[in-house]
Amino acid sequence: MGMPDVDVKVAENVANLIQPIRDDLMSGAAEIALRAITVYQSVLSGEQKSPEQLKSNLTFTAKTLIDAQPAMAPLFHLGNDILMAIENGQTVEDIQNRCTNALTQFEKTLCASASTIADIAYDLIDPGELIFAYSFSSTVVSALLNARARGRFFRVVCTEARPSMEGRKLASRLASGGIEVIHTFDNAMGLVLGNCSAAFMGCDCIARPGVVNKVGSWMLAVACRELNVPLYALSGTEKFVTDERLFEFEKHERPGVEVWDNTPKGVAVLNQQFDLVPFNLLTGLVTEKGILKEVDIEPYVSNVTVHRALTLAAI
Amino acid sequence: MGMPDVDVKVAENVANLIQPIRDDLMSGAAEIALRAITVYQSVLSGEQKSPEQLKSNLTFTAKTLIDAQPAMAPLFHLGNDILMAIENGQTVEDIQNRCTNALTQFEKTLCASASTIADIAYDLIDPGELIFAYSFSSTVVSALLNARARGRFFRVVCTEARPSMEGRKLASRLASGGIEVIHTFDNAMGLVLGNCSAAFMGCDCIARPGVVNKVGSWMLAVACRELNVPLYALSGTEKFVTDERLFEFEKHERPGVEVWDNTPKGVAVLNQQFDLVPFNLLTGLVTEKGILKEVDIEPYVSNVTVHRALTLAAI
Repeated sequence: MGMPDVDVKVAENVANLIQPIRDDLMSGAAEIALRAITVYQSVLSGEQKSPEQLKSNLTFTAKTLIDAQPAMAPLFHLGNDILMAIENGQTVEDIQNRCTNALTQFEKTLCASASTIADIAYDLIDPGELIFAYSFSSTVVSALLNARARGRFFRVVCTEARPSMEGRKLASRLASGGIEVIHTFDNAMGLVLGNCSAAFMGCDCIARPGVVNKVGSWMLAVACRELNVPLYALSGTEKFVTDERLFEFEKHERPGVEVWDNTPKGVAVLNQQFDLVPFNLLTGLVTEKGILKEVDIEPYVSNVTVHRALTLAAI
Repeated sequence: MGMPDVDVKVAENVANLIQPIRDDLMSGAAEIALRAITVYQSVLSGEQKSPEQLKSNLTFTAKTLIDAQPAMAPLFHLGNDILMAIENGQTVEDIQNRCTNALTQFEKTLCASASTIADIAYDLIDPGELIFAYSFSSTVVSALLNARARGRFFRVVCTEARPSMEGRKLASRLASGGIEVIHTFDNAMGLVLGNCSAAFMGCDCIARPGVVNKVGSWMLAVACRELNVPLYALSGTEKFVTDERLFEFEKHERPGVEVWDNTPKGVAVLNQQFDLVPFNLLTGLVTEKGILKEVDIEPYVSNVTVHRALTLAAI
């Protein structure tokens, strides 16, 4: 009953398609998940030798995508949804249909969540105030642009988010949507946060210990508490994972040269991408189900059924 | 009894000599003060028309230097010491001698302080431990290199200190002195601080409200308290100023292009260089008089006699 190995040509194609996702340090988890959908579509559209081979190819794709961005929960859920959906597929066509349906459903849910979250976040943006936003999250961008489009006037302060500087992408995106933006570097957070009425961040995954997001989120959270600025993580419930998977983010270490390309002898460079914000530092988690507090998350964390190919032991 | 205006050629020469000091975002206050001494020496060595003209030239030099780096207390004290010393000088030669003596005394005190501070800091560096150091301070560098030279083994973690990246200068200097250095970006402080046994920073000026240093020091201080890491500011007592002069640091705003040289329309860049760490976030102030706490600073803050040409109203 063993599955065949992944087809060599498919493996090569998938690896090529996933490399840019692996190297993408500028996009949020929801945005990356939408791009992952196209990778699965590419695998589906190839010539299929047998139902077993297709299942094996899709399993390989799921594992490779999850490994590419281990902190990003939506990649895990997308893979998990697909493997669950195709589990009992009998023919190539049946598996293709099941997989396509899972992809469509996932994309729909993601977009509907972002829209609901934007409407909830609208009420957290006081007219005329300054809002702090950190790193790049498509959910946060949607929320801010939605509020501006609905006629709310406010300004946004954001910082660079070293080393990838995706804060500049955020600043550009918001400015082109008609929002006045003030931009500074990350260590100057303390100078600007005190003037903000709220701070928004996205997130990559959530479990009982807290919320994982771009490194610097913990500093932001500690500074917000010190200055009494409410901090909200904006995130669909597709970001919930089991507690042990949460710590997969620690695997995501990038080359030191991305921080300092000319390091002198005797200097080691640390380039970690994510950190963990415990729930007690967050004012609330803005999801499509409403604004959740720590006491509300139990059902979301415990209701994750993991396909046997994607348990941590299997990966 | 009016003083003559500064000599035009002297003014031009002084402005040229001071420009690199104004643009220096990589050096600490003690280091800058040593370079300022050479500016005064240049003024002294020129042809002197009259005692009044020399006094006027030195007063102009003091004001221009203080204006160049308004956060750096040693520049204020150096200028103040000189103007006090030459106040009753009668002849050109007399004024030259008084000024030279003041310069020599200031340099001696600065070097002796750094050495005493290094010896006190030695006991704060636990063998085998990790020490966090922020920005660039010659006092902190002396203390760490002194401890290494005395045979203490430890490692140092430091961050970039955006936007000028003087943290790289710190990393290079320490590594070339035989200290193993771990380097990361500023927003990753939270990932490394928890493993440190102490954190060191320099400082630019001190008064009752707290310690002014490179922007990011406040974030460091808040993070240290959250993680129970003792934070020490290493600084000679020449950094004490009156309370109102402390806030001169807020004048030091630099061009936004130094942060982002290609800013899109609708994005304003904020480039402030300093922030204020209140005493309640500091474990201690390591000076040549010992480790001071907030209760100890009153005599240093209240005993500053300011020359009439250097009061804030006069500048």
